[in-house]
Amino acid sequence: MRAARLFAYDKPLKIVDVDTPRVKKSAEVLVRITGAGVCHTDLHIVEGVWDEKVRPTLPYTLGHENAGVVQEIGEGVTAVKEGDRVILHPVVTDGFCRPCRIGEDMHCENLVFPGITADGGFAEYLVTSERSLVKIHDLKPEDVAPLADAGLTAIRAVKKAASRTTSGSHVVVQGVGGLGHIALQLLRCMTNTVVTALDVSESKLRLAEKMGAHHVVDARKDPVAQVMALTQKRGADIVIDLVGNDQTLANGMKMLHKGGSLVIVGYGGTLNLRAIDMIFAEMSVLGSLVGNWDELRELIELTRQGKIRVITKKGKLDEVNDFLQQLKKGILEGRGVVIP
Amino acid sequence: MRAARLFAYDKPLKIVDVDTPRVKKSAEVLVRITGAGVCHTDLHIVEGVWDEKVRPTLPYTLGHENAGVVQEIGEGVTAVKEGDRVILHPVVTDGFCRPCRIGEDMHCENLVFPGITADGGFAEYLVTSERSLVKIHDLKPEDVAPLADAGLTAIRAVKKAASRTTSGSHVVVQGVGGLGHIALQLLRCMTNTVVTALDVSESKLRLAEKMGAHHVVDARKDPVAQVMALTQKRGADIVIDLVGNDQTLANGMKMLHKGGSLVIVGYGGTLNLRAIDMIFAEMSVLGSLVGNWDELRELIELTRQGKIRVITKKGKLDEVNDFLQQLKKGILEGRGVVIP
Amino acid sequence: MRAARLFAYDKPLKIVDVDTPRVKKSAEVLVRITGAGVCHTDLHIVEGVWDEKVRPTLPYTLGHENAGVVQEIGEGVTAVKEGDRVILHPVVTDGFCRPCRIGEDMHCENLVFPGITADGGFAEYLVTSERSLVKIHDLKPEDVAPLADAGLTAIRAVKKAASRTTSGSHVVVQGVGGLGHIALQLLRCMTNTVVTALDVSESKLRLAEKMGAHHVVDARKDPVAQVMALTQKRGADIVIDLVGNDQTLANGMKMLHKGGSLVIVGYGGTLNLRAIDMIFAEMSVLGSLVGNWDELRELIELTRQGKIRVITKKGKLDEVNDFLQQLKKGILEGRGVVIP
Amino acid sequence: MRAARLFAYDKPLKIVDVDTPRVKKSAEVLVRITGAGVCHTDLHIVEGVWDEKVRPTLPYTLGHENAGVVQEIGEGVTAVKEGDRVILHPVVTDGFCRPCRIGEDMHCENLVFPGITADGGFAEYLVTSERSLVKIHDLKPEDVAPLADAGLTAIRAVKKAASRTTSGSHVVVQGVGGLGHIALQLLRCMTNTVVTALDVSESKLRLAEKMGAHHVVDARKDPVAQVMALTQKRGADIVIDLVGNDQTLANGMKMLHKGGSLVIVGYGGTLNLRAIDMIFAEMSVLGSLVGNWDELRELIELTRQGKIRVITKKGKLDEVNDFLQQLKKGILEGRGVVIP
Repeated sequence: MRAARLFAYDKPLKIVDVDTPRVKKSAEVLVRITGAGVCHTDLHIVEGVWDEKVRPTLPYTLGHENAGVVQEIGEGVTAVKEGDRVILHPVVTDGFCRPCRIGEDMHCENLVFPGITADGGFAEYLVTSERSLVKIHDLKPEDVAPLADAGLTAIRAVKKAASRTTSGSHVVVQGVGGLGHIALQLLRCMTNTVVTALDVSESKLRLAEKMGAHHVVDARKDPVAQVMALTQKRGADIVIDLVGNDQTLANGMKMLHKGGSLVIVGYGGTLNLRAIDMIFAEMSVLGSLVGNWDELRELIELTRQGKIRVITKKGKLDEVNDFLQQLKKGILEGRGVVIP
Repeated sequence: MRAARLFAYDKPLKIVDVDTPRVKKSAEVLVRITGAGVCHTDLHIVEGVWDEKVRPTLPYTLGHENAGVVQEIGEGVTAVKEGDRVILHPVVTDGFCRPCRIGEDMHCENLVFPGITADGGFAEYLVTSERSLVKIHDLKPEDVAPLADAGLTAIRAVKKAASRTTSGSHVVVQGVGGLGHIALQLLRCMTNTVVTALDVSESKLRLAEKMGAHHVVDARKDPVAQVMALTQKRGADIVIDLVGNDQTLANGMKMLHKGGSLVIVGYGGTLNLRAIDMIFAEMSVLGSLVGNWDELRELIELTRQGKIRVITKKGKLDEVNDFLQQLKKGILEGRGVVIP
Repeated sequence: MRAARLFAYDKPLKIVDVDTPRVKKSAEVLVRITGAGVCHTDLHIVEGVWDEKVRPTLPYTLGHENAGVVQEIGEGVTAVKEGDRVILHPVVTDGFCRPCRIGEDMHCENLVFPGITADGGFAEYLVTSERSLVKIHDLKPEDVAPLADAGLTAIRAVKKAASRTTSGSHVVVQGVGGLGHIALQLLRCMTNTVVTALDVSESKLRLAEKMGAHHVVDARKDPVAQVMALTQKRGADIVIDLVGNDQTLANGMKMLHKGGSLVIVGYGGTLNLRAIDMIFAEMSVLGSLVGNWDELRELIELTRQGKIRVITKKGKLDEVNDFLQQLKKGILEGRGVVIP
Repeated sequence: MRAARLFAYDKPLKIVDVDTPRVKKSAEVLVRITGAGVCHTDLHIVEGVWDEKVRPTLPYTLGHENAGVVQEIGEGVTAVKEGDRVILHPVVTDGFCRPCRIGEDMHCENLVFPGITADGGFAEYLVTSERSLVKIHDLKPEDVAPLADAGLTAIRAVKKAASRTTSGSHVVVQGVGGLGHIALQLLRCMTNTVVTALDVSESKLRLAEKMGAHHVVDARKDPVAQVMALTQKRGADIVIDLVGNDQTLANGMKMLHKGGSLVIVGYGGTLNLRAIDMIFAEMSVLGSLVGNWDELRELIELTRQGKIRVITKKGKLDEVNDFLQQLKKGILEGRGVVIP
């Protein structure tokens, strides 16, 4: 089968022929991938950012936002059957460690992350585990693939915001890209907060308005002052930082009201955090990492209810490098999806 | 009456005569202070650390860990009566803003912090509000005064730890001083976690053992490696940093397992927080600020149950500068309490 | 001033002249009532149902759903000023007991319930406490008065449902009257559940549809079977019983899925609860009682956001007995509001 | 192998020879049972109480509190290996339904309950699923077997109490048998509440004192009045009813303070619940059903910490009917355990 693989850091992926993977274990499932989202993390992988964290062996196939159709199942599989449309939870977990047993799949003590630590979904087929599948029923894989990571990361961050706010609280979202446009929709259907979106691109601010932001702020023009003005000098209760560079992290802290939380999702930058600032106003800084199986199920439910819609730009597997370039330049609206 | 007041930063407090305060409003209460704890924050105030945050007008009376006996009550007061033994919640709150209405006194939109932003309890009398009092029944004010801040700050931090752990989780406490020796006792009666205490002083590590720590670690000898060894390379689930300097903050982050939280209570230092570290293992950094009225009530309940005991060293009002010096040198065991 | 008072059980209220109440204490506020909702509980009071519980001394003024304009304030009042439009939380609380301090106003150890245990708001003026007021800003008192009890009771029940469900769960509401039509709107903006409304009146089922119910069920025709069919034999996750007669209570239990909760709000009936049924499927039965100050604040916020609208039928104080009759017959759509 | 089986309701179990079960599926595990607790539910099964709920086919092997040693594992099993000492979570679950995925094993949509709906552990061997096992390390199976159901049911009920109380709250436990003596120990190490135990047997009240009850009440002498006296007429915050007959259920409700909860664990009786009583004081009635995998893990952790100790009376498989008789007469202290 054909697959888009990383042979060297800072180089384009190569589309090459590899062996089609096969079901070997009782609980495994072979999925024909018919939608795979292109993510900022793919860019970061190509740049070598993840090398220190996971030390993958090159070459390997990227792609961690996958959806498709069940092609073949292991003999012990009961949760899905051939022909089912499914979305793939981004990690493969053991199911037996305590994090798995309490539902926190991402903290599995033995996880594999296809597309990051192993071969991923920029390919015609992918073998995964029964535990990693959520049925999508009548939804189309290529329409929902980005929910597997962009959407899942957004819902977990939004739930952190939801549990720390009340009706009328103010939530700021920094960055209206693949994650941001979903986060805005989720904030609108999962909370009754006031939502302000920040971005440096005029067209993304227009997108933010369409996705439900009550206010939009051009982040090129003193965004801290603008948020303070919008909140009558009070500051926001929550800032969700989907960008994560030095500037957005520092600004995020400055925008917060007493008792507020900065939810970090985007990465690359560093935050200089003074202890006295953290205690004086009892602030929290919360890292957020993808989400668990039930959050992916919830996201599919909300999509079926018509409350969430992913903006996608579709292309062939060969276009994956084009998508990566557009992402780097910040000119991709919504999410790029390749259809292998 | 006599009071210990700060006339200039970096100078000792002066014991001077000032007017005795009086009850002026319906909800006010005059308390005869018979115990006032001496806190690291008093040191920080003298050093000018709080000037940027609260800009107090010098001179003023320090002392924010106060307990005593009700001397006089305003006409509208119903919650206490003359002669009641009471401990003073450290802040005076309006009672009507949303934070007050949901029980989060420390986040009151109009709070006054006697001893930090206004005259405090290193004095014979203090006027406070009915809302700030918790009855201590048969306990002695001079024995429990440090619960008003050291204890209250400890219980809030411990409750953050308790809600994020399960029986068998590992909690590290950095610093076994006034807060630390109470935090250790609280961890033992409010959780079933394994508790490790760190300090740079041999005598404080012995104190930690008496207060219930399962393990103690000499923080002068690579504390990160020691904690990793104690946790079979897993790391701690929670680190409570009661010191808050650059070194303890950095070490705290390195000691954490996936999904862990660093609870910052001590201050002075700065933490360099890389976004990728925060998201890769979904870490949290939580500032913690004193505690609310109900947490102070709970602390008094636990003390009456015999589960918490404050180690105090008592002295006269004139000895306040001696206590501050001992605190600076790190040679005070437990908490210094002046009896005005 | 004129007031509608109960002189004898099972008799109409009499409109009589009584002394206008006055501000006597520092924290009291005199409110000119310009909207007072007529509630099923008023009917129950007239029928003597509450006599065993609260033993009020007749005659007294009913009316516990009050809103109006601040006429005069006590000298210590800071939260409102003359001329402010306000809604009255239904109970007057001491503010100092533990329930008050953790925000659970309804559980105040010393509460007074105007209109049930003391003179209420079917009158031109009412004296209440500063603690019982929520500002309504640009909303009109006569439009929102029913939020003080019908709305507040609905939001608390809905929050119990919300915290025990997830997106896609099924919630049944029994009864589409004053509370029900608000509960349906709240379920739609505070959850992403599927909502089914039951009533015995065709016009109320039409109202339910307008208020956002996904499904409506004519409760005269085997409602248990209908709910089972709507849920593919699974049953509902939550049943909110706003009627509370023997039949609705028994049906409510039968409609529940494993792990489900019956939230009881309406009253009058009795439920025969077998212990084995409760444990076999781990069911919960939850009484719900009005709501706290912050829930009333939240309700006003949601109303200002345009997400909640109370259907009212307005009349003069003299029409209060007519409203009670219409309520008894079940022919009042939404809520009757008298404007004294 | 030998097994104790139910051939007819209201008759003693017969010890007979049956085929030894074998591992057939990839995730199955064969456990040699070396400890099986005898439970009130076994009595209820023999009496036919469970027939209406689960309709088992007779004859079958009882025994749902099982522990032992792993004898053989299926080819896909990774969580345990031959020779591991294990305790068996009482139900076998699918692992893929939403309840399983969020950690609520007892609510599995496809569960099997060995000893109740299928062959259980009053036998030399039992085949279960890898998902149902918790390692007990150095503990002995025959000492901890009752934790599988009695202990697990107790910890879940205690956690419901813990999450609804604070330090100083009052918790009443009705019944000091197999569950009760564990519940008391759990209340002492998981909460800082005041604990009162009720029983009709003098020796069990003495046991209760040893297990940590602060107060004991002879339930033959107006227990409601005694609890009211112990709580200064306030009533208890939580009543855990481990008996569940008409009398204890009715008494339980009468003992509760405003906002209180009755946790039902024992069964057999019926509670007449008036809606007005439920709403007037906002009461809750909570069924509690065994517990989940992580609660069993926690129980083993607490036992290893030395905080929980099961009082057992051990016997051979042939003595199972004797244990059932002693249980019926209420003369068994702690828990009977057969060692097949």
